Amino acid sequence: MRDTATMVNGFDMSSVDALDPELRQIVKRRASLLGPAYKLFYANPVRIVRGEGVHLYDADGQAYLDAYNNVPSVGHPDGIGHVMFTCTGSEAVDLALRVARFYTGGEGIVITANAYHGVTAAAAEISPSLGPAVPLGRSVWTVAAPGPGDDGESLAVRVRTAIADMNRHGVRLAAFIADSLFSSDGIRPDPTGFLRPVADAVREAGGLYIADEVQPGFGRTGAAMWGFQRHGIVPDLAVMGKPMGNGMPIAGVAARPEIIEEFGNKIRYFNTFGGNSVCIAAAAAVLDVIKAEGLRQNALAVGAYLRDTLEAIAKDEPRISAVRACGLYAAADFTDPAVGEPDGATAIRVVNGLRDRRVLISATGPDGSSLKIRPPLPFARPHVDRLAEALTDTLRTL
Amino acid sequence: MRDTATMVNGFDMSSVDALDPELRQIVKRRASLLGPAYKLFYANPVRIVRGEGVHLYDADGQAYLDAYNNVPSVGHPDGIGHVMFTCTGSEAVDLALRVARFYTGGEGIVITANAYHGVTAAAAEISPSLGPAVPLGRSVWTVAAPGPGDDGESLAVRVRTAIADMNRHGVRLAAFIADSLFSSDGIRPDPTGFLRPVADAVREAGGLYIADEVQPGFGRTGAAMWGFQRHGIVPDLAVMGKPMGNGMPIAGVAARPEIIEEFGNKIRYFNTFGGNSVCIAAAAAVLDVIKAEGLRQNALAVGAYLRDTLEAIAKDEPRISAVRACGLYAAADFTDPAVGEPDGATAIRVVNGLRDRRVLISATGPDGSSLKIRPPLPFARPHVDRLAEALTDTLRTL
Repeated sequence: MRDTATMVNGFDMSSVDALDPELRQIVKRRASLLGPAYKLFYANPVRIVRGEGVHLYDADGQAYLDAYNNVPSVGHPDGIGHVMFTCTGSEAVDLALRVARFYTGGEGIVITANAYHGVTAAAAEISPSLGPAVPLGRSVWTVAAPGPGDDGESLAVRVRTAIADMNRHGVRLAAFIADSLFSSDGIRPDPTGFLRPVADAVREAGGLYIADEVQPGFGRTGAAMWGFQRHGIVPDLAVMGKPMGNGMPIAGVAARPEIIEEFGNKIRYFNTFGGNSVCIAAAAAVLDVIKAEGLRQNALAVGAYLRDTLEAIAKDEPRISAVRACGLYAAADFTDPAVGEPDGATAIRVVNGLRDRRVLISATGPDGSSLKIRPPLPFARPHVDRLAEALTDTLRTL
Repeated sequence: MRDTATMVNGFDMSSVDALDPELRQIVKRRASLLGPAYKLFYANPVRIVRGEGVHLYDADGQAYLDAYNNVPSVGHPDGIGHVMFTCTGSEAVDLALRVARFYTGGEGIVITANAYHGVTAAAAEISPSLGPAVPLGRSVWTVAAPGPGDDGESLAVRVRTAIADMNRHGVRLAAFIADSLFSSDGIRPDPTGFLRPVADAVREAGGLYIADEVQPGFGRTGAAMWGFQRHGIVPDLAVMGKPMGNGMPIAGVAARPEIIEEFGNKIRYFNTFGGNSVCIAAAAAVLDVIKAEGLRQNALAVGAYLRDTLEAIAKDEPRISAVRACGLYAAADFTDPAVGEPDGATAIRVVNGLRDRRVLISATGPDGSSLKIRPPLPFARPHVDRLAEALTDTLRTL
């Protein structure tokens, strides 16, 4: 059985001998040097040698449409006054957890059921999507991710119930943390505002609200620079990463000053490479490009077109049960029409069918049954058309 | 009271108004943006704007001799076959702990009493030198660092005693971790080989030996590329960082392949920026430079000269009770001759006296009473002479 819980769309090394000789040699060499924990994507791994705009190029010069990666920036929401720089999103999540636990005196963390927040020990134990071999922490409580029919109140009820159970076990709440797009829970952006009652519930219980902006941040949603802004909330701590330096290692935690004041006074935080000049220059350039090229606005406009296009395809495709999108981040759920169950196997066949047509996406959700479409922010309408064509063609041949 | 436990040679923000107006403004702006957890060094903070060779330059173009920073590389010790790349040494330590706990099924970690291993939650809880506001983990046992008169057997006895106490509390050993130069414990390089009986004791108890090579690695000791080689041991996991990319964010964990095989098969490790092409190119260049310029050999030769020079100064200086050095890493202990107690106050006055003479060093050890001299690897004899002159002059005026 393929272990999709551990890595959706992971390459299975037991099929390495079926690859063409040159790629086979590269994949084997990579495994012998880096060991088994680093995974490859796709049944037929892509060997990218360079990138430009929204395209990636393989060793044969073939262009792939990137509908999975990031390019995306920093505004200055009210109340968020300090930024602590790290090198990776995992380090930023880890630091946010340290700060929240120090500030509140509590240990408990509430997350969604298939969340992903990083790979340090503290981040991994709040990342159920890493699979069953990585145990959740003993101070971690999960709630079902937002689903169809959910509104802010119903999610807030689940969070309150989790906190009550946590307290019954003698554990005090430190924080609730979520990515406002719920990327690994299948992408759940709507309805706008549903996180507000959750934030209220968390604060009533003495906890902090941590916004994991690694994926929704920097204009990805089109609606705003930050994902939490769509929901009308200001978090206590906001974590940013991936697109911040367009590939250079820079990430950070933005905080209300009073939250990190005592932590900072008592505990030094020295991250040797955090905020180094080279990476800061890359991050400043990213902000400039997002602004100069209107990439947030582009994400809004092209994202709406992407959603309309996917919905048009879904209308005539009984295997697609739902489409969700927010800016340049979209999901399409595959469901077996005969039994009405999530169909991860078909979703992964679609991902690999698109790869054969040189369009790169992945799958998400607890069953891996939702296409995960996350193109770079300069994506334009013709790129959506190219993706739609490849998707339609793939669906026809499945 | 100055809190030297939290940051040896940290700038005290309550004296910010005593700085010259331009620097005062910069320091205040930095604090208002980054918050209080990021510390500055020296009573009169240095405003570095560029560096070249072994010198750093301030905004007025004044040169400072760098006897505190790093430039320093990678050999291929037998048995260490896989490298997992991260962005920071803290991430690498954190990953090594995850691997050790997964592999052994144990939780317990043995460290030295004033160790420093990083700033993620898991690394911070094995870093007592971060000060009392950062509690050690409940699965962490400390042993006194190697001191005068210690040999491998006496240190191994302390480690065995700690493991027995750990087991008595129902905790199984996962790993022993140490920096073979014991940088934050006051720098304890000798006698060569004393870590071998420790490694034996750790393995007898079913634990792994983790070599924290962030400071001793890349030729720093002069004797070998890696600190553990001086002791005739091969660790199960070796962590590297700081000098690896000469300032670019790259770090990693080298491991015996059988140790990470099951971890890698069951647990994916995806570090977005870990091992990116830009940082790998920087790391490759560092290796080339170390080899082409014979920097390890230079560390050996100039390090011996630095030790002789410090010993000559100490002979006529009753306040210096001991000098220790290993390659380009040296310590000089300050002791109050009247009472025979460690004298951290004098050590910090010496650090600031050298700063006023534009030579940069720091202090280390549980009392901050040992000068910490760690120049870049291209340091030459005239630079040692310059340091010695500034040190002699400082001691004369104290």
